[in-house]
Amino acid sequence: MPLKSLEDLASFCKRRGFAFQGSEIYGGLKGFWDLGPLGVELMKNIRETWWRSMVYERDDIDGMEAALISNRKAWQYSGHEGGFSDPLVECKKCHIRMRQDNMKDQTKCDACNSTDLTAPRDFKLMMGLAVGAVTDGEINAYLRPETATTTFINFKNVLDSASRKIPFGLVQIGKAFRNEITPRNFVFRMREFEQAELQYFVHPSEGMKWYEYWKAERRKWWVSLGIPAEKLREQEHEQLSHYAKAAFDLQYEFAGLGFEEVEGLHHRQDYDLGSHTKNQKDFNIQAKVMENKDSTAKLSYSDPQTGETYIPFVIEMAMGTHRCMAAVLDNAYTEEDLGEGNSRVVLKLKPTLSPIKAAVIPLARNVPELLTLAEKIHGELKALGLGRTVIENSGNIGKNYRRHDEIGTPVCVTVDHQSLEDGTVTIRHRDTMKQERVKADDIPDIVRKLIK
Amino acid sequence: MPLKSLEDLASFCKRRGFAFQGSEIYGGLKGFWDLGPLGVELMKNIRETWWRSMVYERDDIDGMEAALISNRKAWQYSGHEGGFSDPLVECKKCHIRMRQDNMKDQTKCDACNSTDLTAPRDFKLMMGLAVGAVTDGEINAYLRPETATTTFINFKNVLDSASRKIPFGLVQIGKAFRNEITPRNFVFRMREFEQAELQYFVHPSEGMKWYEYWKAERRKWWVSLGIPAEKLREQEHEQLSHYAKAAFDLQYEFAGLGFEEVEGLHHRQDYDLGSHTKNQKDFNIQAKVMENKDSTAKLSYSDPQTGETYIPFVIEMAMGTHRCMAAVLDNAYTEEDLGEGNSRVVLKLKPTLSPIKAAVIPLARNVPELLTLAEKIHGELKALGLGRTVIENSGNIGKNYRRHDEIGTPVCVTVDHQSLEDGTVTIRHRDTMKQERVKADDIPDIVRKLIK
Repeated sequence: MPLKSLEDLASFCKRRGFAFQGSEIYGGLKGFWDLGPLGVELMKNIRETWWRSMVYERDDIDGMEAALISNRKAWQYSGHEGGFSDPLVECKKCHIRMRQDNMKDQTKCDACNSTDLTAPRDFKLMMGLAVGAVTDGEINAYLRPETATTTFINFKNVLDSASRKIPFGLVQIGKAFRNEITPRNFVFRMREFEQAELQYFVHPSEGMKWYEYWKAERRKWWVSLGIPAEKLREQEHEQLSHYAKAAFDLQYEFAGLGFEEVEGLHHRQDYDLGSHTKNQKDFNIQAKVMENKDSTAKLSYSDPQTGETYIPFVIEMAMGTHRCMAAVLDNAYTEEDLGEGNSRVVLKLKPTLSPIKAAVIPLARNVPELLTLAEKIHGELKALGLGRTVIENSGNIGKNYRRHDEIGTPVCVTVDHQSLEDGTVTIRHRDTMKQERVKADDIPDIVRKLIK
Repeated sequence: MPLKSLEDLASFCKRRGFAFQGSEIYGGLKGFWDLGPLGVELMKNIRETWWRSMVYERDDIDGMEAALISNRKAWQYSGHEGGFSDPLVECKKCHIRMRQDNMKDQTKCDACNSTDLTAPRDFKLMMGLAVGAVTDGEINAYLRPETATTTFINFKNVLDSASRKIPFGLVQIGKAFRNEITPRNFVFRMREFEQAELQYFVHPSEGMKWYEYWKAERRKWWVSLGIPAEKLREQEHEQLSHYAKAAFDLQYEFAGLGFEEVEGLHHRQDYDLGSHTKNQKDFNIQAKVMENKDSTAKLSYSDPQTGETYIPFVIEMAMGTHRCMAAVLDNAYTEEDLGEGNSRVVLKLKPTLSPIKAAVIPLARNVPELLTLAEKIHGELKALGLGRTVIENSGNIGKNYRRHDEIGTPVCVTVDHQSLEDGTVTIRHRDTMKQERVKADDIPDIVRKLIK
């Protein structure tokens, strides 16, 4: 039995320490979530899986990590300062404020049904800041609403220092901020979120080729997380942003919520580098860009073989890491009927994603010989450097198994009296609940093979 | 020969793609730095080394990751909203603004020497935000100026979900923000920085014991990064914050800058949990705390064995990850005279920290057989999952060796014509420049042992 709703997922996440409402003890802050002990490990594993697939397993992609706050000009020329807003409507009777396009009925207040509403006004989604002591409060910087722009404005820095040839890509994982009018759906519509983004720079003649290439690659990556292909759907955009040549959402089918976007892929033409380059007139920029009088760098590329100089096209992949985490948990969560009135919750995570890789459990508490052997095995597991492993010394084996099923630990290793006699231990597998008796010395090898 | 100054380090970092000035193409934004392709890998390695030593190699510490923006109340009760400011002085003649305690001469303007200065006023260091559509611009949240408070306010959430017993710790790695009046010294005084912090919760009677324990542990960790003990110094604080019982800075001796703080350790008593708990009067809080009428959670601990209920003391370690990166680079950077007018720059990084773990180099360019074998070896290295490895196909072996010396790649593997005949390759070691001929099949094992 899967989860019934995102609310169920949120309460599971709180109970088990995956995610807590931000600033909870002070009444919370809507649209902000904190990752708990298990959430941070799951998120680290997701990030590392993504980074590995992008940077370590390929030869054509570099990583970077920009500051979260950038000069106002970056967001003027990206088009965000002028255009990045949502339509806000206020009820004149009860004074609640709503995002017009999310209202149940656009003629009536969501809360009190009054039809006495203000006309919609543009509500700016970027959070502005007065950085430094000289501005007297005037906004001169913004928290970034996406990572992409902070990648584009570093294009020349990377080209100069890393000697890359087109096609190549630049990835970032990092926070972004949007002052959403109505944050909702657990980690789905947050005000502070995290993106894992690839900007892939290509020759203008090869835009569609690489768009199709990445479409296939990204689907493969999602399937590699253990997500069944039938729970993924591609939704091509019918209405495109003015700069986009093609775009689609990759969607995952959430329990109780249906298909929702977890990642977007965009063919952005030369809009971005064209917007932020100096000497725009020297290039045949195809997208419609604002005139840029401030940029100090040419964001063009000169092909060393053909001698051609041009503004590369950009194929962008943008994944929300919290949405990925939610999808992974939603997919893994299972309630199993074990018969005879028994049931269990089991989180069938791919072992590489599991927050805890293995638990070592002495069968009884306060038996020094059992604890010593368990600690020895635990020490060997820690030395593998696979991530987090734990020792459980409560003496309640059944409860330990259930707890580790529920948080997705792939195996439990139990040390009992027989272990002291013949050097064997029990290894119990999460998904099948099968137990095998193996040599304690073989445990590190078995666990390493399971996790890698 | 080491680096001469932090400016030298900054220009090295830019040239090689470790760090770039934030928003550089728009004239920069003072106090913000972006990590480039090599900087992000070095930083990831530093974070992971720290996290591993705190969470994976121990049994008493959990990780977490809070939102960067929190409810204003958290920062009222932490004492930051009222007290976290620097004295700002303005020159009435040239109108520059200075942090009073950083002025060269506190009676004269740093820029024009005028003595006509304003009286100092408190300049708030926290960056405030109006989150949501209902505030009409009134500040209701802050970008956190430290990670610690966001750990404390989650104390009960973690206790409930992870069933911890005192003593235990909670770590976070994440961004923090301070509106410094005069950011300076490369990544030393930034407005957006990153902290790796441990909050270790102990019984009040054991505060000093754990303070001394962590003092020794942290020094060991820094030495484990390859930093010589003689470049580290402990500076006990003579003037303590009102809540601190003891505190010291761990300092590293930078070239041209001398000893500077890279980490702080503080015995904070019960100030933090005492400030943020509800029902303060139920506990015998020893630190001087503000009366808290808003908190909805008791941040106390009940010992299951003794039955005692108390507010734990906190021992805090706070490291700046960018300062750690700067110290590691400063320590590793070496200019070597090779005789006969030759020299090289070599970054003697510990291999676990190196941004690139190994480079595979075909001796000549455009020889398909050489490239095929090099790609095979590179594929095997990638499969080890050790981090980033590269293939260099420029055909300029000398230049490749120099480049990889300068960015700290521990080994280069060269494939030549003999390799095609007898299956051996050359492995060249960065620090010694020694070359050995080994079997190509042994390369993965050799590299794995070097890096781990």
